[in-house]
Amino acid sequence: MRSLYNRIAGQNLDRLSALSDGVFSVAMTLLVLDLRAPAAEAIHSEHDLLSALAALTPRLITYMMSFLTLGIFWLGQQAQLDRLARSDRDLAWLHIAFLFGVTLIPFSTALLAEFMSYRTALLLYWANILLIGVLLYLTWGHASRAKLVKDDTTPVIVAAICRRILIAQSLYAFGAALCVFNPYLSIAVIALIQINYALALPLTPRR
Amino acid sequence: MRSLYNRIAGQNLDRLSALSDGVFSVAMTLLVLDLRAPAAEAIHSEHDLLSALAALTPRLITYMMSFLTLGIFWLGQQAQLDRLARSDRDLAWLHIAFLFGVTLIPFSTALLAEFMSYRTALLLYWANILLIGVLLYLTWGHASRAKLVKDDTTPVIVAAICRRILIAQSLYAFGAALCVFNPYLSIAVIALIQINYALALPLTPRR
Amino acid sequence: MRSLYNRIAGQNLDRLSALSDGVFSVAMTLLVLDLRAPAAEAIHSEHDLLSALAALTPRLITYMMSFLTLGIFWLGQQAQLDRLARSDRDLAWLHIAFLFGVTLIPFSTALLAEFMSYRTALLLYWANILLIGVLLYLTWGHASRAKLVKDDTTPVIVAAICRRILIAQSLYAFGAALCVFNPYLSIAVIALIQINYALALPLTPRR
Amino acid sequence: MRSLYNRIAGQNLDRLSALSDGVFSVAMTLLVLDLRAPAAEAIHSEHDLLSALAALTPRLITYMMSFLTLGIFWLGQQAQLDRLARSDRDLAWLHIAFLFGVTLIPFSTALLAEFMSYRTALLLYWANILLIGVLLYLTWGHASRAKLVKDDTTPVIVAAICRRILIAQSLYAFGAALCVFNPYLSIAVIALIQINYALALPLTPRR
Repeated sequence: MRSLYNRIAGQNLDRLSALSDGVFSVAMTLLVLDLRAPAAEAIHSEHDLLSALAALTPRLITYMMSFLTLGIFWLGQQAQLDRLARSDRDLAWLHIAFLFGVTLIPFSTALLAEFMSYRTALLLYWANILLIGVLLYLTWGHASRAKLVKDDTTPVIVAAICRRILIAQSLYAFGAALCVFNPYLSIAVIALIQINYALALPLTPRR
Repeated sequence: MRSLYNRIAGQNLDRLSALSDGVFSVAMTLLVLDLRAPAAEAIHSEHDLLSALAALTPRLITYMMSFLTLGIFWLGQQAQLDRLARSDRDLAWLHIAFLFGVTLIPFSTALLAEFMSYRTALLLYWANILLIGVLLYLTWGHASRAKLVKDDTTPVIVAAICRRILIAQSLYAFGAALCVFNPYLSIAVIALIQINYALALPLTPRR
Repeated sequence: MRSLYNRIAGQNLDRLSALSDGVFSVAMTLLVLDLRAPAAEAIHSEHDLLSALAALTPRLITYMMSFLTLGIFWLGQQAQLDRLARSDRDLAWLHIAFLFGVTLIPFSTALLAEFMSYRTALLLYWANILLIGVLLYLTWGHASRAKLVKDDTTPVIVAAICRRILIAQSLYAFGAALCVFNPYLSIAVIALIQINYALALPLTPRR
Repeated sequence: MRSLYNRIAGQNLDRLSALSDGVFSVAMTLLVLDLRAPAAEAIHSEHDLLSALAALTPRLITYMMSFLTLGIFWLGQQAQLDRLARSDRDLAWLHIAFLFGVTLIPFSTALLAEFMSYRTALLLYWANILLIGVLLYLTWGHASRAKLVKDDTTPVIVAAICRRILIAQSLYAFGAALCVFNPYLSIAVIALIQINYALALPLTPRR
């Protein structure tokens, strides 16, 4: 039997959304702290400055990748929360665990930017994407099992959200597995998967 | 007699929630700044990178502990605010003081991560948890005394929220007291208490 | 004649509140970045750690002062926004300027913590408080002149909000002027004024 | 044909606003991290401190410029979102891309502060403003084409929002082009354009 406290806690969907938007917006903006202006002492000409900026390219690429990742998962979480009629404490904790994974993204991004040629860095980055994907899948599973979803959420919609996560994570896993050949290949494939998810609609025919 | 200004200030529960969600989300995300990517110069192989990452384990543990702490208190504050019908200036200030304690968590976490074997660090970490616990208790006491709670908040609910805080803080105090024997034992016990609170519902039978 | 664009911009009070809550919560939490854990190399005993933490006291004091400052002005801005029925572009820009002053607080706080015995640091800290006070006064003046306030906002309430700002700023100016004698005296007096504003209600008789 | 998932994702205008307010408020507050208190060792008198603070002037100027930039684009985005009746996934992604540009502002500001006399830094700063301007233009184009706007949004209003962006960006481009003569001239002109936009209404006659 649940304690009374546990039955009244974690019921506020608005605050769960607000906390999530806060965490995502801070994580998105903290990513920029890894893009540091070059040290002034080493720069003596426009050419020096351009070279120093060019050297930031790997960080800019991982920055954009991570921004895409955060955008994809922010939209994914929002699509779920929009379908909910109510919340409970378990759902709140599953989302807090999901946000924990989100706050790790700036760290795994910095690691990948610094050690792009290392499989360890690439696999940790992928593990981070996997972690938030698994947690997003669990939140949805719990929401549909515990009947927290809105009445108009048909089984077709429930399945569409599950399928979306499974397909995306399979693609990411495939991309990560390519690091057996070359970590850069993995990064390129993961980035393409992300760009595909971000652009999917504009490129496909409208109705 | 209160001044007119003081009677019109601090009445907005929505903005109090918004400020709180902001502070919690920034504090949760700032914790990651203590997880720093190893310096590139010291890393010459996958093995070096794995070792350097393994050395981050204490920071990762304190990071997770503090994320749990913030999650527990965010839910605790939310459970209270959800029961309120209105706010007043005293309540707003008590919550601001509570948020002050929350912003200290990244500092006391960094201290604990750096000085895990020191009782001083452990006791300061515990003092921080105690501070926000006491303030959360005071906010609820004020809310029920000043009749700010919703009409359907029965004395049973009022008591359940108080009891929850008292029991949790007793357990944390017990955990902290164990540092007489060994600070690591304290950390392990406090972490277990936190995990218990986070997981409590999923592990207990449903109705 | 205003351009059409300017007539439709800046009308959303909710987003103005949300931006403000965001800026305040980030500023409140960034203050903690100045409380840094001591360097591990210099610490060899519990006693070393306690001494190193004791040396952080000035930073902790300025941290608490600035948290109080931010709390006072957050409540002051909220009291104003709660009285508004609508917004316009000028009001939005005055609040953005106010938020600019708010984001300077972590800087002027760090300066004061580092240079407590210098009049320059104290006067800059006070100038920061003056700046946000003046801007809060201007926002209210504009709101009442441009008839943005709710219908039930009587002239008595309009005057009470103005008076509150003027009295508080006079007290801060007096406190700052005491740096002619001693900057520490100024800090103590300003801190007492802030504590008085934060605690005012709990200490005065209730009705 | 769009997938079911893509038809249900990204429809929540409130969360899009909340994410945007979060990103803007963090970006606005992170700017202050570039204003660092001078190192205590180098300061031995009030005069030293004043000189050290005077040396921060370029950073303070770029800080204010960027705060103005963020304020202008925050209002611009808000004016658009206020006119929307609904959202779709493409609109959400266009706004996420816009927010990506916003998070780059603290970086391009730090670069400009450090390398004020370099054309590269000035042109990158301008490119950042151009990027977020173009994205804001695209979001509006998509919103009006995809019939996401409210019914009372007349073609005159649609055109006014487009025109505003085009004129502002033309002026910024003109300002940036002046760096052929001198980067400082560019900075001064861009700052004047920004101040004009921020102050426009107060200086023009009321009706």
